[in-house]
Amino acid sequence: MIILGLDPSLSCTGWGVIRSEGSRIMHIANGQVPTDAKASMPRRLSLLQTSLDAVIAEFRPDRAAAEEVFANKNPQSTLKLAQARGAVLAACGAAGLDVNEHAARLVKKAVVGTGGADKTQVQAMLKVLLPGAKIAGADAADALAVAIADAHLARDY
Amino acid sequence: MIILGLDPSLSCTGWGVIRSEGSRIMHIANGQVPTDAKASMPRRLSLLQTSLDAVIAEFRPDRAAAEEVFANKNPQSTLKLAQARGAVLAACGAAGLDVNEHAARLVKKAVVGTGGADKTQVQAMLKVLLPGAKIAGADAADALAVAIADAHLARDY
Repeated sequence: MIILGLDPSLSCTGWGVIRSEGSRIMHIANGQVPTDAKASMPRRLSLLQTSLDAVIAEFRPDRAAAEEVFANKNPQSTLKLAQARGAVLAACGAAGLDVNEHAARLVKKAVVGTGGADKTQVQAMLKVLLPGAKIAGADAADALAVAIADAHLARDY
Repeated sequence: MIILGLDPSLSCTGWGVIRSEGSRIMHIANGQVPTDAKASMPRRLSLLQTSLDAVIAEFRPDRAAAEEVFANKNPQSTLKLAQARGAVLAACGAAGLDVNEHAARLVKKAVVGTGGADKTQVQAMLKVLLPGAKIAGADAADALAVAIADAHLARDY
């Protein structure tokens, strides 16, 4: 089972691909798609989408996963995030991929063992769980974490 | 100048295409893309996008326009709306289309003459401004209104 984890955001969307076999997980690839803040919103969204199209075409995931989206205190941030998420999810839909959504707390619990873990703990645990993986950055790390969580959580379905 | 007006929403996205020549406007086409509430979010977003891709390919607009998005009192509604908008704007970006954003008040003012006009007044005025146009529904009407407003407002640039 190949799982695509996603951390959508307008400024930089992270993605991570893992293979899950029984209780084992293996790193396949990860990356980040930064967009130019000076470009128009439609161009930025289109870049996110075509980049994800390419990732999906290359790694052919069986399913995808993302953290549940939440409404930020800043409505403008929420709107930007949700628009980016819309473009990214549309790319998944076009490829026939379902996207499981997991609460941030459950992602941390699945990766570190506690829902209150901070980013540093998550990133340290990724090095243990995915030995040798070169991680493109914080957004790719978040995307790998949600993919790992999805692999764990799906076992309990 | 061919203008594509957009009224993005997850449940039903409206679109309208007009031609603007000097001070004249003509109706070209309009329609609505409803999505199945029982389908997954990625599938619904992908349907919005592929439908808009087809509209853009058929009518080859020179530019697009949409109402400015605002954060609704209900954060879940805002998230749904913004995700739909993200998928629709990504379709515009993929076609190299710029999307002008206009405040709802300015759209009403441009179409009816007053920013406080209600939907009934806007729809009545559309019948006058676009004689003979068969309008697919309320969402298509809103999309045509924003296209007309864009034609008017662009004259003042």
